[in-house]
Amino acid sequence: MHDSLRINRQRLVSRLEQLGQIGALPGGGCCRLALTEEDLLGREQVIGWMHELGLEVSSDAMGNVFGLRPGTEPGPPVMTGSHIDTVRTGGIYDGNLGVLGGLEVVETLNEAGIVTQRPLCVAFFTNEEGARFAPDMMGSLVYVGGMPLEDALATEGIDGERVGECLERIGARGDAPVGNPEVHAFVELHIEQGPILEESGIAIGAVEKVQGISWQELRFTGTSNHAGTTPMRLRHDAGYAAMATGTFVRELANRIGGDQVGTVGALEIQPNLVNVVANQAHLTVDLRNTDNERLKQAETELAAFVEQLAEREGIEVKHRTLARFDPVTFDPDMVARVEASAKALGHSVMRMPSGAGHDAQMLARVCPTAMIFVPSADGISHNINEYTAPEELEAGVNVLLRVLLDLAE
Amino acid sequence: MHDSLRINRQRLVSRLEQLGQIGALPGGGCCRLALTEEDLLGREQVIGWMHELGLEVSSDAMGNVFGLRPGTEPGPPVMTGSHIDTVRTGGIYDGNLGVLGGLEVVETLNEAGIVTQRPLCVAFFTNEEGARFAPDMMGSLVYVGGMPLEDALATEGIDGERVGECLERIGARGDAPVGNPEVHAFVELHIEQGPILEESGIAIGAVEKVQGISWQELRFTGTSNHAGTTPMRLRHDAGYAAMATGTFVRELANRIGGDQVGTVGALEIQPNLVNVVANQAHLTVDLRNTDNERLKQAETELAAFVEQLAEREGIEVKHRTLARFDPVTFDPDMVARVEASAKALGHSVMRMPSGAGHDAQMLARVCPTAMIFVPSADGISHNINEYTAPEELEAGVNVLLRVLLDLAE
Repeated sequence: MHDSLRINRQRLVSRLEQLGQIGALPGGGCCRLALTEEDLLGREQVIGWMHELGLEVSSDAMGNVFGLRPGTEPGPPVMTGSHIDTVRTGGIYDGNLGVLGGLEVVETLNEAGIVTQRPLCVAFFTNEEGARFAPDMMGSLVYVGGMPLEDALATEGIDGERVGECLERIGARGDAPVGNPEVHAFVELHIEQGPILEESGIAIGAVEKVQGISWQELRFTGTSNHAGTTPMRLRHDAGYAAMATGTFVRELANRIGGDQVGTVGALEIQPNLVNVVANQAHLTVDLRNTDNERLKQAETELAAFVEQLAEREGIEVKHRTLARFDPVTFDPDMVARVEASAKALGHSVMRMPSGAGHDAQMLARVCPTAMIFVPSADGISHNINEYTAPEELEAGVNVLLRVLLDLAE
Repeated sequence: MHDSLRINRQRLVSRLEQLGQIGALPGGGCCRLALTEEDLLGREQVIGWMHELGLEVSSDAMGNVFGLRPGTEPGPPVMTGSHIDTVRTGGIYDGNLGVLGGLEVVETLNEAGIVTQRPLCVAFFTNEEGARFAPDMMGSLVYVGGMPLEDALATEGIDGERVGECLERIGARGDAPVGNPEVHAFVELHIEQGPILEESGIAIGAVEKVQGISWQELRFTGTSNHAGTTPMRLRHDAGYAAMATGTFVRELANRIGGDQVGTVGALEIQPNLVNVVANQAHLTVDLRNTDNERLKQAETELAAFVEQLAEREGIEVKHRTLARFDPVTFDPDMVARVEASAKALGHSVMRMPSGAGHDAQMLARVCPTAMIFVPSADGISHNINEYTAPEELEAGVNVLLRVLLDLAE
């Protein structure tokens, strides 16, 4: 077919840098929180490029945007894409690579005069990051029918504004019915956001699974006491309970092993004084696994530990679920296509799970789906120092090109 | 002698309540941080009462105040007293009871027309709490020669003002040479600030020892990472290190047992987000024991644990000593006098250590010293809910009266 076709690295990087200028932060990176003025400017830039490339642009009531490239035959397109919203201190690659990589594939095909049998589509989904409106991956979740549109539009953000109001105000609310266009298959190119590819010296990750996520909040209430005059046996130390829980989460993750990770990233105690036993402690627990049974096991063990701890320490504990997504397994045939395409292009490739959530995991509910990962320097993401080298980006988009051609013929 | 002599409970409580009105907080309790305007007003009130009771009032360059009641013979007085400064959210008993209990003893003797052989002295020492200027027990430390006056005067407070400037401004700097008057013996009445007397149903504590105190600050520096994409084995989690240290401190205190206590009361991690491995953590460790060898053992074990932990986790740790006081053992004869006096008055009494620091531990460097404890409701202190019932206060001051008479005859 078109085995020698390659994308244009410089053009790809140039678009990433141009989009990164919108909402650029002083020290590097950028801030384009979903449905802000900066997001609008980013949308206008990308939609402008879509028009330049001859794509038929539509958007739905969630502000999801689709650029369609007709094929020689009708039917649902092979879709690629990701998101262009960022966290508050985001990099220029997270999400953007998947969208602009898709545009680069389209331009490469345009230049070569290739028209695929099935239509192609480059999409970006609203509010993937969830940094302003919870939950994350909201646009793709609504697109696949996993959340009613009305619920999404009524979601209040951290600044009090609602999704629907913001969509209206910035003019991003489209008239295409939600769920359109239908999709034949979905492929998302994304930076890894972790250290595994770099550590392994491997260029391409063929993502097999997305970890299930369990976010919990625990609040312990004990009794504030003098650290000198209160014997250990008479203490009801909320701070100790929080720290013991954090220590347990590490032991639990190590013991379960495999893909299991466990993190206490947020912890606050009160009154937070050197010589006072804490009466209040608040912490979050982030548990993830690609295997839902093991993830449930981790949740169950944590709950049992916390219950016994609270009873032993004579304190109260309140539990709240902040987020819970089951793991997602991608279509094995799709994963094999990514792997084969990378090999055919001479790139090293490994199968791996995704530790972060992505739009692809929502699309997997409605069509065969795969993800392509490229390395993240030092595993850093959601950080202005996020970086992937031009040749690594190029390798990823060439794999995307090949997989899309493969699927569209 | 004067076995039937008793103090006046109502007069005692009335003085405690009057002094508690100075710097009174809206919800109860009071705030008279050392060398503030509120402290000055408190000093003026107490010095006024000293004059009313016929005491010869002197103050030294540290602002320590002494009210002398001459005896039938000259020589160093038997001294009692404590402090009248409070923490920011203090109660009306901590410190104040020891000073106003001393005045109540004097008034009781005055009414009965009793003149003791040795002089008596009621003192209050500057900045016992250390809530504005470190270290705590500063006035009594200077009085006994444990800290050069110049160093104390140059000490900068949390608000940037120096001790010397404050003493000048509020006019509390006296002209008596530091260390005067000399002291024959010292007895301090104080609330327990812990739950042991109340839990044991005992009226009087005969304090044998004051716990040694070791305050340390630990700062861990690791690497911030994505909580989903970073495998456990590649983490350098400063938050985990802090929590594991807090968990270890509890195990350590339990294992050493006896009087050993260990507390992590302050802990902060950064960036403090649910899905980010912490790169910074800061915590304090408060270790106390009446046995200095065991306290040193606890410090050594903690240091070894932290070193191994930091190495295993691949993070940096910085250590700083915030405070270190050796334990103090009171004169056995003095402790026996407290015990005997309590028994003679028909009160239940137990020997016990003090978990908090007190001026008496400084005085113990220069004279036979003892402390009398009365119960604290729910063990609460440094809190506006601090409370000791009038009859419990009365019992303590009657014991103080008896011990002082015993020492002064």
